[in-house]
Amino acid sequence: MTAARAGDGTANSDRRPCSATDVRGRGFSSRAALPVMEGWIDAAVAPLPPLAVPLADLAATLAEGVVLAAPVTAPGNWPPADRAARDGVAVASSDTLGAGSYNPVPLPGAVTVAAGEPMPPGTDAVLPVEAMQTDGPFVEALGSAAPGEGVERQGEGLRAGTVLLKAGHRLRPQDLGLLAALGIDVVHVGARPRVRIVLAGGPRSGPETLCAMLAALVARDGGVVELVGPLPADRAALAAAYAAPGADLLISAGRTGVGEDDVAPLALADAGGLALHGVALRPGDSAALGWAGGMPAVLLPGEPMACLTAYELLAGRAVRRLGGRDPALPHPAVPAVTVRKLVSEIGCTELYRVRRTADGMVEPVASPHRPGLAGAVLADGFVLIPADSEGVPAGATVTLRCFDGTNL
Amino acid sequence: MTAARAGDGTANSDRRPCSATDVRGRGFSSRAALPVMEGWIDAAVAPLPPLAVPLADLAATLAEGVVLAAPVTAPGNWPPADRAARDGVAVASSDTLGAGSYNPVPLPGAVTVAAGEPMPPGTDAVLPVEAMQTDGPFVEALGSAAPGEGVERQGEGLRAGTVLLKAGHRLRPQDLGLLAALGIDVVHVGARPRVRIVLAGGPRSGPETLCAMLAALVARDGGVVELVGPLPADRAALAAAYAAPGADLLISAGRTGVGEDDVAPLALADAGGLALHGVALRPGDSAALGWAGGMPAVLLPGEPMACLTAYELLAGRAVRRLGGRDPALPHPAVPAVTVRKLVSEIGCTELYRVRRTADGMVEPVASPHRPGLAGAVLADGFVLIPADSEGVPAGATVTLRCFDGTNL
Repeated sequence: MTAARAGDGTANSDRRPCSATDVRGRGFSSRAALPVMEGWIDAAVAPLPPLAVPLADLAATLAEGVVLAAPVTAPGNWPPADRAARDGVAVASSDTLGAGSYNPVPLPGAVTVAAGEPMPPGTDAVLPVEAMQTDGPFVEALGSAAPGEGVERQGEGLRAGTVLLKAGHRLRPQDLGLLAALGIDVVHVGARPRVRIVLAGGPRSGPETLCAMLAALVARDGGVVELVGPLPADRAALAAAYAAPGADLLISAGRTGVGEDDVAPLALADAGGLALHGVALRPGDSAALGWAGGMPAVLLPGEPMACLTAYELLAGRAVRRLGGRDPALPHPAVPAVTVRKLVSEIGCTELYRVRRTADGMVEPVASPHRPGLAGAVLADGFVLIPADSEGVPAGATVTLRCFDGTNL
Repeated sequence: MTAARAGDGTANSDRRPCSATDVRGRGFSSRAALPVMEGWIDAAVAPLPPLAVPLADLAATLAEGVVLAAPVTAPGNWPPADRAARDGVAVASSDTLGAGSYNPVPLPGAVTVAAGEPMPPGTDAVLPVEAMQTDGPFVEALGSAAPGEGVERQGEGLRAGTVLLKAGHRLRPQDLGLLAALGIDVVHVGARPRVRIVLAGGPRSGPETLCAMLAALVARDGGVVELVGPLPADRAALAAAYAAPGADLLISAGRTGVGEDDVAPLALADAGGLALHGVALRPGDSAALGWAGGMPAVLLPGEPMACLTAYELLAGRAVRRLGGRDPALPHPAVPAVTVRKLVSEIGCTELYRVRRTADGMVEPVASPHRPGLAGAVLADGFVLIPADSEGVPAGATVTLRCFDGTNL
């Protein structure tokens, strides 16, 4: 086993000689706590420089998540001048005094305005069109307007310097509309990291089934995918694929366990360095972290549910950090009450796949021990039991992480 | 005003002669209730035929929302045979009887397996590697295993015919993984409707500021955008742009109000038919529905907040229906308690932009009367007050619609 090698681009304090050993046929002597793995990622992975993107180019990719790299503040008071708050006719309110449906009052200077348009000089109110009538070339008011009625005052909407959108904010359609209205046509947003996904195969595995899932996860977290493999369980071939230039992050799936052909950690040691192998996380406990050709690397187990879990808790964090996003889990968190007890081993973070019941509680679909994605497909989300807990009883309030923000 | 003309592709019962009249300079004599507008859309807009898409091609667009056009059921029991539920060594449990750390028991037929791999013939349990030791060529158990321990039984995960994913389900990354594992490599998903966005301008408007917002909204709802304009407020030019072939839906923004240059409804009448003009919705009350060159058409006001509101409640519904999605609002709905009274006019559906307070309540950011997107940008979501309500008092529980599923 080689020592962990320093990456070439990022300073951090975790470049100790590697303490991981070859676990094949022996098992793990210990596994790192999840927060230790997260801490390693946070130290090793720095955000890429932001991109300056024309506003018009953002619309098509907004749904994938685009985050602001710098806050946006109002460049001036908004609206910049008094403007109509509704469609109608701009009038001098004093001209409408006493007007009513039985007392039409002529309005020689009335001007039609639409909501949002500036108030014409000499006007201070907007009468709705329904409160007007035309009599040949003459316009008459059928009601009076108070000064300022139907008008949005200069600066009423926004004061100059107001922070409209914070750094890290995920842009929404209306944000693009306001930026355009403010004349901001280039926006600095988080980079889209180049993520290499290597599928590490072997005679009895089917890592190609992980391909679409991992590509979708990386895209969700803002990355651009380069797919390599499936490759055979060959240490040299994997090491070469890991160390090749052209990516910001390496994610490899498969061949991380204790079998004779589980050579991914050895290949990573050859390609740069194996920093941590084995995590106190179920499923996903054979994940590893390290360096490949100067870039940070995450090895995921090949068992599909373990792969999904280790992606969400480790690899996804690295992708999100590179792109300047919040590194925390992207799944909406809502409180929920357990229908049944969820048991968990002390010392291990465990993930339960759960579904919502008709009365808004959550029940487990699959225990942390059960392999396969069927449980994750039938689930609405997941509950994490932290390592210091032996589980929660029925009726406890837990944090449900929704797989999808639309299924609340 | 011409009569509403039937579309050429869709049978429905709403092809009555048009009752809308020219509102320019006169105002609306009446406005349709929001449910009437929704009902017109539902009758006029039928889903497009689904698409058969290779699984591998779905990963890149999954974040934009891809919905299943048909349910997916388990093609067989899953797993198809007993398989390892954890990494370790497959053994015949009877061979491990009495084994312990002080009583190693030789296991001549032990085979290393990874979680998810089939159980080799003659084995019925998986010992973790940590419960084994090797002594030269010999493998010894340091603990005993009960029959079935560490094994997932055939059919335990899924029974053949179980509905895994319903029609209309929005695909998630793990769904792609399971579909791949089941050998399903082509999926029938909702179509991506071709949506023409026409920006209808005029001397005093800035419809180009709506472009990015509308394109992002249509992309969020699964449409592919064709952008036309900004065009001048010219009836013939707009009618020609509206009626041109090549799209599934027309959305036009701007020039729907009561001003002399608000010619979009007249142009729609020329291009096919104006069915309904004016909706009891604030903001957004000058929206219109009809037909253009045989396709359904939605006209949105040019004031940005009115445009956003009318898109969400009318145009988005049409986009989502075409793509086979749930036509209801896509914004996650959560209960929330009002900090202040929200007043509303009887007979009009009103939209309040609201933000969450530190204690989880909601307070209005902007009244339905206030134009401009600043309020929508500073808001976390919105609350709709239905037409039959004069508002809700402080402390009432309302439904908060979140602008973004990640900000719960």
